[in-house]
Amino acid sequence: MEKPYVVGVDVGGQTTKIGIVNRRGDIVIQTVINSLYNPDEAGKFMDAVCDTVRALAKDIGMDQIQGVGIGAPNANYYTGNIEDAANIAWAKGKSIPLGKTLSENLGVPVTVTNDANAAAVGEMTYGAARGMKDFIMITLGTGVGSGIVINGQLVYGHDGFAGELGHTCVVRHNGRPCGCGKTGCLETYCSAVGVARTAREWLNMSSEPSILRTSTEITSKDVYDAAKLGDKMAIEIFNFTGRILGQSFADFVAFSAPEAIVLFGGLARSWEFLEKPIRESMEANLLNYWKGKIALIHSSLRESDAAILGGSALAW
Amino acid sequence: MEKPYVVGVDVGGQTTKIGIVNRRGDIVIQTVINSLYNPDEAGKFMDAVCDTVRALAKDIGMDQIQGVGIGAPNANYYTGNIEDAANIAWAKGKSIPLGKTLSENLGVPVTVTNDANAAAVGEMTYGAARGMKDFIMITLGTGVGSGIVINGQLVYGHDGFAGELGHTCVVRHNGRPCGCGKTGCLETYCSAVGVARTAREWLNMSSEPSILRTSTEITSKDVYDAAKLGDKMAIEIFNFTGRILGQSFADFVAFSAPEAIVLFGGLARSWEFLEKPIRESMEANLLNYWKGKIALIHSSLRESDAAILGGSALAW
Repeated sequence: MEKPYVVGVDVGGQTTKIGIVNRRGDIVIQTVINSLYNPDEAGKFMDAVCDTVRALAKDIGMDQIQGVGIGAPNANYYTGNIEDAANIAWAKGKSIPLGKTLSENLGVPVTVTNDANAAAVGEMTYGAARGMKDFIMITLGTGVGSGIVINGQLVYGHDGFAGELGHTCVVRHNGRPCGCGKTGCLETYCSAVGVARTAREWLNMSSEPSILRTSTEITSKDVYDAAKLGDKMAIEIFNFTGRILGQSFADFVAFSAPEAIVLFGGLARSWEFLEKPIRESMEANLLNYWKGKIALIHSSLRESDAAILGGSALAW
Repeated sequence: MEKPYVVGVDVGGQTTKIGIVNRRGDIVIQTVINSLYNPDEAGKFMDAVCDTVRALAKDIGMDQIQGVGIGAPNANYYTGNIEDAANIAWAKGKSIPLGKTLSENLGVPVTVTNDANAAAVGEMTYGAARGMKDFIMITLGTGVGSGIVINGQLVYGHDGFAGELGHTCVVRHNGRPCGCGKTGCLETYCSAVGVARTAREWLNMSSEPSILRTSTEITSKDVYDAAKLGDKMAIEIFNFTGRILGQSFADFVAFSAPEAIVLFGGLARSWEFLEKPIRESMEANLLNYWKGKIALIHSSLRESDAAILGGSALAW
């Protein structure tokens, strides 16, 4: 018999969000725990997650929990493992059996996938993509992630690692070095980190006046704040970022002909500056029969909830 | 009750191949008819196809035919129409209801899709991709086509036009103009026409000696013949073409994480010169966990049969 609750978990580099969600998509209780453990402490982290789930479920009862769904960096749906997550000390260069360990410890089914896939499932279950069978979720955060839905199903591919659109190439020659070892990857230009990198490059290359010159360690938030104040360079940085995203989106459309591209994540908060250049450059690069037909949507989920909802949606 | 035969049809710009295929994938009878009709003669062409199918099925009996499967340029699986096929006079700028017309005329179910999708289904049913659930078919002919299989299913997308990988961008600035209206598309470099274009450009740009200088109207076949004779420029043209294909394939892998990329079509006959540069450049551009894991396969179907088999496989 189906049970009334699921647990959604979002494993991040710094913190891990855990919540219990009902069938309507309400988070009935949630908390945040620390993700920062030493390289040899993956077990300790997983114990902490299990203890937290049990504590949250104390009033509801673990026997009312249908399952646990987890979004985590470099997590593989088929194996349930986190595979070599560069930004997590206890998962770097290792294979961490997250699904198996939690399932044994908690005694409920555990489903694992990468964070962008979890976001796509969340968006399809509770958000802007409800009812859509073909869409692409793009998460603009520290990196650029993607979750691809085709015919109502997440695309996992042959090995469970499909949807690494942040590592498609946007600059073929002299592109920026990427953490993945390649150069010119989309995420080196269009993530939060990429936007800050553009700002630093442009400030070095020109002597154009900009509010950004007053920042010492520029972040994408600084660029957003400057753009809000009308700073010309900051606005042009978002135009540049949006143009690259739009060019890439046109190529993604040529692959799976989605109904929509849905954007989510920290950088997508700068939607007011990104929307226009993304849309214009996507339209300019689409094949004729797609022009004007692909929706570009900013996620309708609250960012603080979306990660938990995404994980939880996997568990139904 | 299922019937023992299907009809496979491959509509090309010049000729249309029609054959009857049994359950083992043997073409029991086949013929070729002319596709060259005037702009207002789509009906005449479709009548000719129906007459030919009936003539081929005379001994077997139309009541033994399960259905008809058709691969055609710009054909849409959902609607059964050919939509604005630039290379076919009677389908240029028009929507031709191929599926509906043939189904009504012949009294059997008719399934329509674009030629690259049909090739992918043929490869999955009878060829090198048998048993594969995730692969990408790339057809290197006059243009570059693609058929994407994910989880054992052809990807049609929201509107039926998914899989236009020949029109993803490989040269962002000053790319070659493409018939689609965009510039820098993969097919402007890596189709048979693209290879001939590279040869003409290079001959104009340099004074390097080459057998190709003796050709008046260079085709990709001339470049192949020259490479066979050890012509340095011809070999370098295939290296250049293969490098671009490999770079693109690495990005395609990031999308759907396929088990293999299968190549087919006229230009793929130059496999002996293309394989190495494609493989090297794909490997150099893959994310680490895919390196050495994606098979690159030359279609195992005879080219003359594949088109009919591809269409026929749709009809089962």
